[in-house]
Amino acid sequence: MTLDDLVAQIKYKKSFLCIGLDVDLDKVPMSILNTDDPIFEFNKAIIDATHDLAVAYKPNTAFYEAYGVKGWKALAKTIAYIDLNYPELFTIADAKRGDIGNTSGRYAAAFFNDMNFDSVTVAPYMGKDSVEPFLSFEDKYTILLALTSNQGAFDFQTENLSSSQQSLYTKVIEISRSWKNAERLMYVVGATKASELKSIRSLVPSSFLLVPGVGAQGGSLDEVCKNAFTEDCGLLVNSSRGIIYASSGIDYAVEARHKALELQQQMAVWVSKLE
Amino acid sequence: MTLDDLVAQIKYKKSFLCIGLDVDLDKVPMSILNTDDPIFEFNKAIIDATHDLAVAYKPNTAFYEAYGVKGWKALAKTIAYIDLNYPELFTIADAKRGDIGNTSGRYAAAFFNDMNFDSVTVAPYMGKDSVEPFLSFEDKYTILLALTSNQGAFDFQTENLSSSQQSLYTKVIEISRSWKNAERLMYVVGATKASELKSIRSLVPSSFLLVPGVGAQGGSLDEVCKNAFTEDCGLLVNSSRGIIYASSGIDYAVEARHKALELQQQMAVWVSKLE
Repeated sequence: MTLDDLVAQIKYKKSFLCIGLDVDLDKVPMSILNTDDPIFEFNKAIIDATHDLAVAYKPNTAFYEAYGVKGWKALAKTIAYIDLNYPELFTIADAKRGDIGNTSGRYAAAFFNDMNFDSVTVAPYMGKDSVEPFLSFEDKYTILLALTSNQGAFDFQTENLSSSQQSLYTKVIEISRSWKNAERLMYVVGATKASELKSIRSLVPSSFLLVPGVGAQGGSLDEVCKNAFTEDCGLLVNSSRGIIYASSGIDYAVEARHKALELQQQMAVWVSKLE
Repeated sequence: MTLDDLVAQIKYKKSFLCIGLDVDLDKVPMSILNTDDPIFEFNKAIIDATHDLAVAYKPNTAFYEAYGVKGWKALAKTIAYIDLNYPELFTIADAKRGDIGNTSGRYAAAFFNDMNFDSVTVAPYMGKDSVEPFLSFEDKYTILLALTSNQGAFDFQTENLSSSQQSLYTKVIEISRSWKNAERLMYVVGATKASELKSIRSLVPSSFLLVPGVGAQGGSLDEVCKNAFTEDCGLLVNSSRGIIYASSGIDYAVEARHKALELQQQMAVWVSKLE
């Protein structure tokens, strides 16, 4: 998918909503558990009920790997289902991978070729040669962890570096701009860090930011937009638990749609300004 | 597995060799490709041929994920094979995972419960709450990336922090000592950084270090030992390509054993000093 396709979808749907597909079988209705592939059935119902309100879906690989081979199969099936039925959707493997060069190349093959995801999240700790193999894929995007939404973000990411008197996450963003095919980079910036969003936006005026932490983790959508909305939107705001577990009953897909609609309506106010 | 078990195995085998099971089907003999599960068959032959010379096996998950469901099945089968036939071996999921707390808990379940690995490698960028869920498993070990063996290690890991005038990787090691169940931590330190090993050893006098980069990446075994060998050994030195691709012919397992034996004999000199 090209960035133009993504922006066109955002404008058409008046939404920059990303829905996190983090399926926990302890939280899904009993009726789903009796199906052959409960993880896929849950995802399918959520996607069918919300695909016109969201522009992106983001399965976090941890929730699939926890179920072993069965989970990995359900992940592949979910992505194939989206590709076949809603090819306009932007898909994100929230995998937070990163390894030495030849090994990162294998991860890129796993997510971009074997499963045909549009993008994958990558951790920056191992530096340039751990990220560039992901960037070599045309029309695929690498979403680099910059400033995450959790408390642990303050352990290392916000530490100032002696060499530049800037934070580690700022250095990650700045240095990554010099990497080959940097135009295929996006960045993870938590909604819980709205005050930092403005300075991050000044570093990467046109890059897309994937923003988790709205809803369950306490971030505000309007604060995020005030600080980082661009003339092409430039944002994908994620909600996972707030949408997919809006109800634990058999009406979970209907309730997920209600929650997605609430967010989409707030987003429409911002997207309408782009006309 | 307990650390006492691991140390006992090291003394018995006079080895602290870890073999990296990074299977690339483009590099295995044609005869293997005609079997039902070539990835597993390759691993099985390597393990059968070397299990008395090595104390640990380390599949890197990237090489399995690249083959999708088939790869994930082969990984599970490989670990089950080791558990059944060589339960004394220490197994490492080289996965470099790390996510917000509840999500890291799912990764820990994937590797420690679903697949019964003894340990998993974890990236520190997201801080304390991304690592502690792994540490909560008894008799399981979390191997934190500290100073990796690749060129990209110099992008962020070796940057000095203003607050403490120490490098990021030093801070990662120091702060991790205060995390809950820190006694279950080990650290990844590349053999290509032998000069730093001595100061790292002074920070964690008794922790096990997983040392990649001997062989194909150019690190020296003796240099590693001079700087970081402890009275309980305290080292797991990994070789992947240098052993498993010692030959591309049908004699690959025999040649893998020769290469493993060469390393084990060098290691025996050091382990013998522990008597």
